[in-house]
This record gives sequence, structure tokens and C-alpha cells, in this order.
Amino acid sequence: MNGEDQLIRKIARAVPSQIGRGAHDGGLALGIGDDAAILASRPGDAWVVSCDSFIEGVHFLANVHPADSVGYKSLVRAVSDLAAMGAAPRFFFLALALPAGRTGRWLDEFLRGMRRAARSLDMRLAGGDTTTGRVVSISLTVVGLFARRAGRNAAHPVTRSGARPGDRIYVTGRLGRAQLGLELLRRGRLKDRRFAPLLQQHLYPRIRVALACWLARNRVPSAMIDLSDGLSSDLSRLCRASNVGARLWADRIPSVSLPSAVSKLPRLRKLNPLQMALHGGDDYELLFTVPARKEKRLRAAPQFSEFTCIGEITHGRRILLIGSNGRATPLEPAGWDPFRK
Amino acid sequence: MNGEDQLIRKIARAVPSQIGRGAHDGGLALGIGDDAAILASRPGDAWVVSCDSFIEGVHFLANVHPADSVGYKSLVRAVSDLAAMGAAPRFFFLALALPAGRTGRWLDEFLRGMRRAARSLDMRLAGGDTTTGRVVSISLTVVGLFARRAGRNAAHPVTRSGARPGDRIYVTGRLGRAQLGLELLRRGRLKDRRFAPLLQQHLYPRIRVALACWLARNRVPSAMIDLSDGLSSDLSRLCRASNVGARLWADRIPSVSLPSAVSKLPRLRKLNPLQMALHGGDDYELLFTVPARKEKRLRAAPQFSEFTCIGEITHGRRILLIGSNGRATPLEPAGWDPFRK
Repeated sequence: MNGEDQLIRKIARAVPSQIGRGAHDGGLALGIGDDAAILASRPGDAWVVSCDSFIEGVHFLANVHPADSVGYKSLVRAVSDLAAMGAAPRFFFLALALPAGRTGRWLDEFLRGMRRAARSLDMRLAGGDTTTGRVVSISLTVVGLFARRAGRNAAHPVTRSGARPGDRIYVTGRLGRAQLGLELLRRGRLKDRRFAPLLQQHLYPRIRVALACWLARNRVPSAMIDLSDGLSSDLSRLCRASNVGARLWADRIPSVSLPSAVSKLPRLRKLNPLQMALHGGDDYELLFTVPARKEKRLRAAPQFSEFTCIGEITHGRRILLIGSNGRATPLEPAGWDPFRK
Repeated sequence: MNGEDQLIRKIARAVPSQIGRGAHDGGLALGIGDDAAILASRPGDAWVVSCDSFIEGVHFLANVHPADSVGYKSLVRAVSDLAAMGAAPRFFFLALALPAGRTGRWLDEFLRGMRRAARSLDMRLAGGDTTTGRVVSISLTVVGLFARRAGRNAAHPVTRSGARPGDRIYVTGRLGRAQLGLELLRRGRLKDRRFAPLLQQHLYPRIRVALACWLARNRVPSAMIDLSDGLSSDLSRLCRASNVGARLWADRIPSVSLPSAVSKLPRLRKLNPLQMALHGGDDYELLFTVPARKEKRLRAAPQFSEFTCIGEITHGRRILLIGSNGRATPLEPAGWDPFRK
């Protein structure tokens, strides 16, 4: 057996996986160990597929981010795109490029983090590819399911393109938490216990799978997207896909409050919670729009207390931020962009 | 629109792709432009999924390989895994990491090669991910279909694990051609017209999709795999998956004949055609096993004249190479292995 085959076995043992044959109906008919995996379909099922890359030096820093966080986060952030459509996560494919020096302990830790994410999401590894590379490069393909429910059609996918003027704009959670965690990490606060809770959303993000599935099943949102690059960028994408504009109220946007221990750190006291909430990436909260007639239904949602209405969809294409003084300023997409010059 | 969104548009325009909504039945219900793509299934269909990475400095060299070859080959080699199961290629997802300096002309050429491959394979881009990176890193997820045929079940996938003692071992084409092309390239012969035909299988490999589908549809092979890493390594994988051994006849293995122009080049005259056929990678020919009772059916196959019977499956786990003198030597897997020390 060659080195690559041994590595594939190690990975398949370390994370929840399916090797060889499985369910012939509504599942993975063939998993790891052949040229390709086979997804068996039941009538009415629809498979949902998304890809996401996570690359050393671009999305994480080898000397800053713990390997188990890299493994955990790489899977969770890929699955966030499935959740944003309301699909139930099922399988994943891992294409992994590793420098030779990372196939030992670093890989073990990486796989430990990925195992934890896969278990919490109830997902299994179905295949992939391993090779060497100058830096760690992780490419994940995640597969979810809109399953047919008894006596009905498959759950309805929620796209980015259904928002209409008058719809209310909602977000879950508090925004800018991951950005705050990143700022603390950059200043070497990984081991500082005072800040441990503030690092969580950056290192081990929670995503809203069950909630997103509830919203899709109950057909509440007219459009939905996950906040991966930042509110300003992702709202701009949703509006462009729906051919609409938006108006946001600055003082309703749920931002982080800076603990005094943070405000005392040099260079961190200038952090602006609203700016982090508008443009900070990696929160993986949900952004969705709700027609007025469906707002009542929303109150029955799990975690309703964590929803905030931050604005409304408008005619035209402009996105405006209304300050507490009532003044409107255009909000440009200024979140994470790997190709910004 | 940010830089990443602009790049995604450029890619989607340059290759055959599906943007937004499509066929709700047996196709891509939602393509590029949302959080994920949606595959709609018809009863009896099975989707086949495979991943493959193609990385600068590992699988290709930026100063040696033309960008259009990188684009062409990255897709074709990924699809080779679908063909090896007998599936019909349909959609692909491209996760692309690019250094900033490669988003212009290099990317245009890359996409031109990928467009040519996608057209020849009748495939459409369904989604993906773009980001920056220190080197070009291409990760492809390819999706094929075993479609239900009128009045029958879906075509039968051919796995690696069905070979049985007594089955004959077949390969298509001549082996070691891609290796010979690589040796010529390494010696700076890209522009040398005498060698242009010898470079083809390395730069723009042909894969046997129609033939593989015919074999699967007619249920001829007991097992099949594509020759991506080299005969010795890929036969070893097939035998391990099937829990069998094999006996190969060295003088039946269809190797390349070295043109005299090649034999005259310094350091190339020592190339050994048999060694290249046994261990050279990147040929993407098919290796398959056929039970004796089905060999007659094989003669009706398209391109039958390009098949060669090179040996037979045996009990036990050993793979033996029988020389022209009748002596048997163990054949160790010595093809391409990214993790070889």
C-alpha cells in the first residue's frame, strides 16, 4: 500500500465515514474506497451540493490557529452554505493537500477537530483526495438533502433571490463576534483565559442548522444567506440576486459589547462594534427576509429571542444605513474579499 | 460587487455553466449564484461524485505546463474517475485558489482549456469557490449520473471490488505514453514539433468515457479502475479491493515504442518502455477484469482493437510479473505517490 492509500485509511478511521457499500435508498450507496461515491435517491429527494476552500496563509495561520480549530472550522463553514438553503447536512468529501511535515501530529489534531464537527452535524465522510502541497489546503464538498416528507414534496429550498420590497430583514445572534476573536488572536491572546469565550465564534463557530431547517420547512423566509464574509457584503449579494435594495437601522444591528478587559488592551480600545458587525466575516449567522404576512409565524421559531429585525427591503438597488440621527448613508460591501487590492 | 464575485462571473461566462434555475427533473435544479447547487433526481437515478486536486508544484509546473493544458487536464483527470465506474459525466464544481498575478491572462488560458474539456465531455459548471493562494490550487468535484433507462433500473456501476480468480485482465490503449510526454517536457521539448504527438497524452489526455459507459451498460467487466497513478499501483488497488492476486505477462503489456528521434536525445535513450508502462502515471486508460464467460461479448465493444489482455486474476494476494523467459517476479506498486519519501 502506498503512502497516499495509508493516509486515506487514517483519515477514514479518524472521522465518521462510510467505507464501501451502504443504503441503496436515500443515502450513500457507495462510500470511500472506489473511484467515486454513489448517492442513491428516493423519489422527490433533492441533493444540495456546495464547495468551500480553507487555505493556510489565506483563511488561517499555521502559527496562530490550533490544528483542531482548522479541522472543525473548515467543515462547519462549508456546511453553513447548506444550512443557508434549509438543507439537512449528510455527507462530505475532503480534498486535502498537506506538506510532508504535517502528516503526523498536526493531522491528528486536525482530524480530531473535524471529527467533532462531523459528529455535531451528523455527517459522514464519503470520499475525497489527498496529496502533498507547500501549504495546507483544504477543499470541502458538502452534500445535504431536501428529503421528501411523508405525503408531501421535498422541503422547499430557500434561495438568495426571493426578497421583495417591504420584506423585513432579520439576523440571528450578535454580529462581529468572530472578528473580535480574530483581533484578540492576532494580539497573541489564544491562551489568555479571560478572553476564551470571545475566541469561540472565531475558532469553533456555531452554525444554525436546525433553525435554518425549521425556517425552510415552515416557508417563513423569502430569501436567506449565511453571513460568511460580513453583513455589508452578504446583504449586497442577497439584494443583487433579488434585484432589490435595503434600508438598515444602525442602532438595531446587534453588535458585540466590548468587555472592559478588551478595551484596556493597547490597539484594541479603538475597535468599533458597529463596524465589526457591518463588515466582520466568519460569524456564520443567518440573514433572511420575511414578508410582513409571515412575521407572526416567525414567533414560533426555536431561538426566536435571538432574532433581530435590522431593516427592510426596498425598491431600487441601493443599500442605505440609517444612523441614530436619521441620516442615511450608502452602505458599500466592505466585508472579507480575498481579491481586494 | 467585490473581486471574488467578479471572478466568479468571469469563470461562469468562460466555461459551459448553469446560472440559477434549471431542469427540475433529472438535472440541475439550481446552478451558480446561490449558497449551494441543487441536483434534482428522477426515480431510479443515482448520482456519482468524485473529487480530485491538481496543484502547482505537485501535479504541474507553472513554467513548464501551458495554462490551457492545466485547465483541460484538471477536469479530464477528475472525470476519469467517473468514467471508471461507467457513469455519464454531467456537472462539475471548481474550487480555485489563485495568486493575484494569475487572475489575468493565465486564467483566461486556463479557462480556455477547461472550456474545451467541458464541451468535449458535455459537462456544465454548477458551482464552486474562488480565493487567493500562494500557488495555483485546483480542486474539482465532478458529478455523473447512472440514469434509469426506459423500463429498466439505473445502469450498473462497476466498482473495483468485483474481480474473481480466473477473470482476464484487460487494458485499453498503450501505457506509458503520458510518462514519455513528461520526460520530453522536462527536457524542454514543448515547442519541438517532432515530438508534438508524443506530448498529447501528457498535456491533453484522452479519456475513455463512451467506452466505459458501454462496458458498464453491457455488464462486461467484473471490476474496473482508471490508470491514473500507473498500472502497478492501480492494479494493486483493484486487487486489494477485490481481495485477489494477479499474474501479468510482461511481453503482452502494450508499451510505447520510442521513435529514433527520442532515442537520440541525451538521457532519454535509457528510457525503458516496459518500466514506463508498468509505473508511469497519467495515462487515464481503463484497466478492467472480465469473467471468461463474458469475453465473447467484449468483442462487440467499440474500439475493441485497442484492448489488450495482459494477464489474469489469481487466488491469494500476490501480483506477479511473468517475464519472457517464464520467470515470475513480484510486482510492487511503484507508480505515482505524492507521499513517497
